[in-house]
Parts: sequence; structure tokens; C-alpha cells
Amino acid sequence: MSDRLIYLPLGGAGEIGMNAYVYGYGRPGAERLIVVDLGVTFGDMDGAPGIDLIMADVAWLEANRDRIEGIFITHAHEDHIGALGHLWSRIKAPIHCRRFTGALAAHKMEEQGQPADVIQIHEARPAVVQAGPFAVQFVPISHSIPESAALIIDTPAGRIIHTGDFKLDGTPIVGEAFDPVVWHQIANEGNGIKVLTCDSTNIFSPLPGRSEAILANPILDFVTSQKNLVVATTFASNIARLKTLAEAGVAAGRKVCLLGRAMRRMVSTAQETGILKGFPGTISPEEAADLPREKVMLIVTGSQGERRAASAQLSRGRYLGLQLKEGDSFLFSSRTIPGNERGVIRIMNAFSEMGVDVFDADDGTYHVSGHANRPDIEAVHELLKPRIVIPMHGEHMHLREHATIAANKGLASIIATNGTMVDITGELPVVVERIEASRIYLDGSVLIGAMDGVVRDRIRMALNGHAIVSIIVDEDDGLLPDALVETMGLPERGRAGVPLADHIEAELSEFLERADNATAQSDKRLEEAIRKITRQVSMEEIGKKPEVTVVISRLAAE
Amino acid sequence: MSDRLIYLPLGGAGEIGMNAYVYGYGRPGAERLIVVDLGVTFGDMDGAPGIDLIMADVAWLEANRDRIEGIFITHAHEDHIGALGHLWSRIKAPIHCRRFTGALAAHKMEEQGQPADVIQIHEARPAVVQAGPFAVQFVPISHSIPESAALIIDTPAGRIIHTGDFKLDGTPIVGEAFDPVVWHQIANEGNGIKVLTCDSTNIFSPLPGRSEAILANPILDFVTSQKNLVVATTFASNIARLKTLAEAGVAAGRKVCLLGRAMRRMVSTAQETGILKGFPGTISPEEAADLPREKVMLIVTGSQGERRAASAQLSRGRYLGLQLKEGDSFLFSSRTIPGNERGVIRIMNAFSEMGVDVFDADDGTYHVSGHANRPDIEAVHELLKPRIVIPMHGEHMHLREHATIAANKGLASIIATNGTMVDITGELPVVVERIEASRIYLDGSVLIGAMDGVVRDRIRMALNGHAIVSIIVDEDDGLLPDALVETMGLPERGRAGVPLADHIEAELSEFLERADNATAQSDKRLEEAIRKITRQVSMEEIGKKPEVTVVISRLAAE
Repeated sequence: MSDRLIYLPLGGAGEIGMNAYVYGYGRPGAERLIVVDLGVTFGDMDGAPGIDLIMADVAWLEANRDRIEGIFITHAHEDHIGALGHLWSRIKAPIHCRRFTGALAAHKMEEQGQPADVIQIHEARPAVVQAGPFAVQFVPISHSIPESAALIIDTPAGRIIHTGDFKLDGTPIVGEAFDPVVWHQIANEGNGIKVLTCDSTNIFSPLPGRSEAILANPILDFVTSQKNLVVATTFASNIARLKTLAEAGVAAGRKVCLLGRAMRRMVSTAQETGILKGFPGTISPEEAADLPREKVMLIVTGSQGERRAASAQLSRGRYLGLQLKEGDSFLFSSRTIPGNERGVIRIMNAFSEMGVDVFDADDGTYHVSGHANRPDIEAVHELLKPRIVIPMHGEHMHLREHATIAANKGLASIIATNGTMVDITGELPVVVERIEASRIYLDGSVLIGAMDGVVRDRIRMALNGHAIVSIIVDEDDGLLPDALVETMGLPERGRAGVPLADHIEAELSEFLERADNATAQSDKRLEEAIRKITRQVSMEEIGKKPEVTVVISRLAAE
Repeated sequence: MSDRLIYLPLGGAGEIGMNAYVYGYGRPGAERLIVVDLGVTFGDMDGAPGIDLIMADVAWLEANRDRIEGIFITHAHEDHIGALGHLWSRIKAPIHCRRFTGALAAHKMEEQGQPADVIQIHEARPAVVQAGPFAVQFVPISHSIPESAALIIDTPAGRIIHTGDFKLDGTPIVGEAFDPVVWHQIANEGNGIKVLTCDSTNIFSPLPGRSEAILANPILDFVTSQKNLVVATTFASNIARLKTLAEAGVAAGRKVCLLGRAMRRMVSTAQETGILKGFPGTISPEEAADLPREKVMLIVTGSQGERRAASAQLSRGRYLGLQLKEGDSFLFSSRTIPGNERGVIRIMNAFSEMGVDVFDADDGTYHVSGHANRPDIEAVHELLKPRIVIPMHGEHMHLREHATIAANKGLASIIATNGTMVDITGELPVVVERIEASRIYLDGSVLIGAMDGVVRDRIRMALNGHAIVSIIVDEDDGLLPDALVETMGLPERGRAGVPLADHIEAELSEFLERADNATAQSDKRLEEAIRKITRQVSMEEIGKKPEVTVVISRLAAE
């Protein structure tokens, strides 16, 4: 069998978040592999209550660990870097990235007790990282975090461009501009570009994207026109935006205070790695509290309504000695990611109750996206002239739309969702295998499989409540007649007016008195019968069937 | 003390949904009362998992039942009518409304075994309903459901206009147009308008609202240009939209099939009450399945992603013999209400996986709002010239914005959220009392208080999991040393690698063996100690503290 080139998304294809992509080259089944990005996504009450982080299941990578040449990180957003500390020990390959990304990656590794010295820092193109059959270059590309990189992945079967997240920004404020001349050059080297694996996030946005630079004047006007305390929130990693906001504050005669650990870390890391220069000096919360309100601007975390972030803390009252008041202003210099609306609206209303004027960026005045819009993506297709377009970083509908657009231009394309291994050796992409592409949950300090049933049980308890039945079987397999019933998350009283637990206990006692020996000897039969009775009584009494846990204590002969 | 006029929102002021407003006139503390609307809102996993419906707590009304002259319903949306069947028995006053609303209200009452004959049907103004000191007229006003009515409430202290939900639509397709001449007249009768209690839903929408009629051509163009099966969804109660969609289907040479019980009921009720004329004949799902796909248009429920509605059913596969396929089209002729995004996106992606082309109304081509926008609301202020504006039907930020706009025009205004009793006898509104304004949950077949702890416990189990500990105390207050531990919604194994339940059992056995008599005799002490140990071990093992239920069985002396 001849060597082949494969593409295998394990995360990020069929969802926005949790990016993890694999490329391989070599004999089928023995390809040498590289991993691109290893990110997280976040749980919510609907789908994963109590879960701290969600990551791609890397079982396939773990099973093929000896084939992995390296992990390449495009940029330092959580959905590209967040799983490194949790999953690296299962993969144990060197991590390759640029400087700022590397500093944040090192932090992720150290937090989880993993070695940070496996991280190798690289310069941008023309520097080349050799990893088995792959020659990889980091190409600066504009995005909403500094030092985002697209990857040139040269293989014996041709050149792949993996865009990472990007937008076409000629004036990104911080970091490198999108440079069409460089990309034109890249597209015309050698045999040109075989495969473009491309960001699809904003494929449904019909207008060309807007530059970070256009926000400076509106934000300055905004801050200048406020009379009391000004608070602004944005994504902690959007260093350019933080700079724009902070400079507006200073120009309006205010001292700037950063609230939120993630934001302070981002700024200091950007300064230490030389990416951020000229950021105004900041003051501490204590200093801010001592100044007149009209002399202060707070820049805070929590633009997505996260309950523990600074904006939510401020919406609940005093935080680090600071408290918002009637006449203060709060600016969301951010867009609400779909699914986070409830949390953001909760905060807006809490500020409204305090008399704080809330300003959002819904009309685009105070926020621009970090992703390429449809016309930008089309421009990239035309600039790079790939023979195959593989849409990534999108939900299914985004991938599909992107693939359709490419196909309509005569480019080969494919919708490859998580777990779909695609052979991209030839002129047309071909699905060659489906890998089980599940998810791993971080729950407290433990990693569990999404299919372990833990989250399913939590959702069921939340929807249906939980009834606990305890019974005792004596030394001679005799059933003691008194069942004890406790409930959690269930109404205390039902239709009959008596406590629900008492009612279930009475019905269970009747059953226990009548049960035969065979039943008494079998935990399984007892459980089944008790569960059925408990659910039946509950249905009659309260109109719903709870989850039931039966605890059977068998007394040992002395 | 002289008589006074009061306003008391119990629901709908500080939220969008669950409307319930009270007006009173008479001696302070003995005012005669009318209730305007009695609606519901819906629970979600974040705030009220497992809860079917949420309604205003009517404890205050129940306590003052003998003072209630009547319940007036402005229109038949669930958030104005949905609680009638559940709460009427606590209030027992006659229900006043117009014909179509009354037919749907009767259904709500009958579903819950309540008498429908307490519903009195009234003609629109100039008909007057006398209810104690109140003389009430129903004034037709345009909204996204037929027969919406604003109320003129004449009192000895002056005229109140309660807008209900409304928009300024001169061409609403079905039902009555907004008529500025009539409203000019109403504003100029007698002493003019004292109080305007006014819809605030779209106060943040800066452009004038658009008429239902502008959708006909775009929707016709859309349906005509589709090549296979066309499916459209919208709110079941938006009869005008259903007519526009169905007529487009017929004009495009298709047979129309309505899917979803709520939608079929709405259409038949509208036809029976004479409100809807000329709606095209429809076919059954069986007939639809037998026709060529390009000859069929389905109009379905579930525009908000509701899991049991027709659109969600279709997104999961075959439903009533119908199944969507590659090349079919699905149109959301609706806007996604904030908070419902996840459900809607889930459905869109499921259709995308089937190869169905999904079209949304985000750019306004296929949907218009049923509520007045900011310029429309301002126009109503100017048309009606009220002396006091009370914003309602909005979250706090909507009420605040609306009150600010009114105040800036020199109109008296107030932010009165649920439970705020306002004296509106004089020229300025004055808060005179705060009523406990909680919520009631329908859970299965039982009504429970929002503060009963049931939902709090469900949320905690969902976030933290649940550990159940069962122990036995013998006849002599001796603790049997073997605790049984079961867990639900917790990882099976923790850091130590052994099953978590085993580990907790081992620690508890140690405790049980050492516990003194005083502890053994006290359920409370045992519970506290066991809960503490269980949570500690869990924290060490899995990094989180579960909810703990302790079941103590005390063996009786024989």
C-alpha cells in the first residue's frame, strides 16, 4: 500500500469550540501524526450540569501515541489550548507554538502538574518545524488574540494550510496584520496549495468583516461622554481591545483598573513576551476605590455573564471594595455567544436595578468579530486557490454552508465532522474511517467520559427529582416491613394531601409484607418491584416519576 | 381616609412573561380590585429544571378574594392566559374577555376541571363592562394574535389605559388594525388619560415597527423558489402569519398540512369564532406523505426549539409518517426568544445533517415583531397624552429605559416591578406598599412555591451529584458498622482508583465503630457527622462535595 495523507478532526468540526485536529502521513494505519490544537468547551445546565470543562476524547490518540510527532498550537484561546494540561499526559508529544501562546500554554501545563519544558517556542515563517514527514511553518494571521497563526503544513503529498481562527484585519491594533502579499507568495510556492482547512465561524455573516481599529473613536467618544464611573467588559484575551479601552480611559482623564485574574494574566503575559507595548499604567482596586468615580475606568472580565467573573460579582454588589451606583455606566464591548444570553441578561437587569446605564455592542459600534465573514472567506479561497477546501471550526450548518460555497466555485470540498477520517492524498477527499469521537468531562478533579452516565443521571435527577428507599432484610431473608423513604427535589405533598414519602412508605410496606421468599432473596427483584411501586405512587400523587435509588441492607447472621 | 386608586403588578413587571396586574379603587386596604391577565412563563434547566409552568404567586389575591370584581384578559397568548385554569379556583371571580380569547380561555379552564361558564364574552368598545368602581372597555389593538385588546379602565379617579401587548399595524392581515383616529378620540374624552400602563418589550428597538403585511411577497417568493418539500414554523397563535404562509403555499401549487396540536387548535378556534376567513383547506399528514414532495408545504409548531413540538420531532427523524430529506427547505418565520437559542440551534444543525436547507428570519425578511418599537411607543405617548406612564411587560432594563424616555418628555413615570403597590390617585405615582411577589411552579400535577426548596435541591443534585448513605441502629442503640453508600450523578472512581462509594463506606465504618452513645442516639448528630465525612472524602477523591441524604433505620425491639 502506498503512503497516504489523512485529516481527522476529533473536536471543533460540528461545534464551535473544543478544537482538536489530526493530520497523518504514511502507510495506511501507520501514518505519522501531528495534532493541531487541544482546546476545551464549556458545559451548561442543559447539557452538562456541574461539568467544569469539556474536551475531545483522545482515546484514539492515546492508542496511537507512538505515532505522534508533535502538537501544534495555533493560538492561545481556551478552545485551542485549554485541554493541554489535562490531556497531555495521555499523548506525551512535544508542543510547538509561538512565544505568547507558549507562555500561556506553560501556565496551563503547570496548573495540572505537567512539565512545561515540553513546549518548544518557534519563530514565525520562514522558520520551519520538522515533525516526521511534516514541515510546519507558523504564519502570522490576524484574530482577536495576539500572535494567532495559520499553519503551513508541507507533506510529501502536498501543502496544507490550516488557518486556525482568523480574520482579514490590516490594522489589528496589537499583533500582526493580515498580509495578502505573503499569502499570495505562499499560495504560489511549489505546487501551490492542496488543502485549505478553514475557519467557518462567521460563514453566515454576509458583509465583509471590520477592523479592530475602527472601534477606537467610538469607544473614546463613549468614555469621554460618561459622567461617573465607567466599567467596560470584553474577552480577557482580546489584548487589542483592552488597549483600545484603556487608552480611551486615559485620554478621558481616568485611571484604569483591571479586574479579573484572567485579564491581568493576559496583559502581563503580553507585556512580558514583548507583544504589548505602551499599555497604560493601571491602578489597584483599592486605589480605584479611593479616587472620585469620574476619574476611574474599570475593565473587567465576564462579558459572557460567567457567574464567578468580575462583571457578575459587581452585579451582585460590592466586589474588592468597589460598588456600582446610580449614574455609572457599563459597556459590553463584546458579543454574547449564543447560549450565554440568560447569564448576560441577568447581569444587565441587575445593573439596571442599581441605576447603572448599560450599553451593549449589538449594533456593532463597540465590538468587531475576530472571525472572517463570508466575503472574507471567499476572498481567501480565491487568494490561496486550494484544490480542496475542508471547512472546520463550525457547527454542522456552518460546515455545510462553507462546503456548499466552495463546491459552487468548483473546489473539491467535504463536510467532515468529529471522528471522520478523510484521505486527502488524491484530488478528491475520501472518507476512509469513522473514529469514535466522544467527549471527556472535567468534573471537579476527575476526568470522566461523556457516555459514563454521570451527567445523564444528574439531568434526570434535575428533571424528575430523586426518591431514596431503604429496606432491611434480616438474617433469615425475612423482609422487615418498614421501608424508609426520603425524597430530594420532589414536592413534599401530593394530591392526597399527605406527605408523599409517607404515602410511598405505606404502599411499600404492603408489598414487603406480601413479598415471597424468592423476591426477598433477590436484590434485583426487590429493586425492580420497589422502583415500580415508588414511581407509580408518585405518578398518581404528583404527576411525575422520580429517579429511584433502592438501598437494601441485609443483616448478617451473628 | 379618602378613596385611592392603586396599581399592583404581580407578574410581568421585571420580566417578559407571566403577566398578572391588579388595579384597585376604594378605601386604602379595602379597595375593590380587578385583575388584568393571568399568564405563565416557562422553566428552563438553569433556573427551574423539571418545572412545566411558572405563574405569579396569587397569595395576596387569594387573601383578598372577596374584594375582586373580575379578571380581564387582554389576549390569548400563554403569558396572559396560561394560568387561568391553574389559579382561577383561588380567585373565583368572573373572567371577562372577547370571543376568540374566550374560546381559548374556556379550553384552559376545562383542561384543569374548572368551570368555563364563569367566562363572560364581551363586544369591543363602545360596550362597557362594569366591575365595581371600574368601567372597562375592550379596544381592538394590533398584535401577533387576533383580537388583542387594550383596556380603557375608567375609575372615579380618572381614566387608565392598559395597552396589553400591541404594535402599530395598519395592515395586520387578520384582525383589527391599529386605528389612531379611535385612540385620538379616546384620549380626548372627558379629562383625558390619567395613566398609561404600557408594553415595553421592544423599547430598545430604535426603528419603527413593520407591518405583518410586508411579509407576504418575500414569503411567496421563498416558497415559489423551493424545489422540494417546504416546511415553515412560526408561533402557533400568529394566525396572520399562518394565513400568509398557507396562502403562499397554495399560490406556489402546494397542499398545506398543519403539524402540531396547538396550531391546529388555534386555526380552528379562529375559524369558529369568525376571525379567520378564507384560510386554505389543509390536508392530513397521511395525505401529505402520499403526495410528491414538491406539492406539499408543512406549517409546524416549535419555532422556539421546544423538544416535543413538531419541528423538533422532524429534526429527530420520521414524524407522523413524514421525514425531511436532502434538498428540502425549512423556514423559521419567527425570532428566537432570548434563552431559547440552544434549542433552536440544535434543530438547525440536525436539519443540516439531513441535508435540509435552513432559512432563518434574522435579517427580518420573514418575520416582524408583534410589539411596538421605541418610536411607536413614543408615538403612543404623544397620541394619548397620559399624565403618568407606567412601563410594564419588560425586564427591569426595559422598564427603566421606558420610564426614562417618558420622564425626559416631562411625563410622570415610575419603575414598578412585581409586588410594588403604587398609589396613582394623585398627579404623581407613589409607592405605598411592597407585596411578597413570588412565583408558583407547576411540577407534574402539583403546584409548589418557588421558595419551597424543591427546585433548589434539583439544581444542587444536578451540579454536585447525590450520595445516599444508609445505616442501621440496632434495638440497643448500637450502630451496625457497615454503612451502605450509593451514588447518583457522581464519577464511579476517584483519585485513589477505588470506587468512590467503597472509599466512603470504609471511612464511615471507621466512624461508626468509634461513635459514642450520645451520637448513636441522635439522628441529627449522626446525619451531620455522616454528611461531613461523605463530603470530605468526596472532595479529596473527586474534587467536589455532593448532596448527601442519610437514611437511618432504627431496628425496633421485638
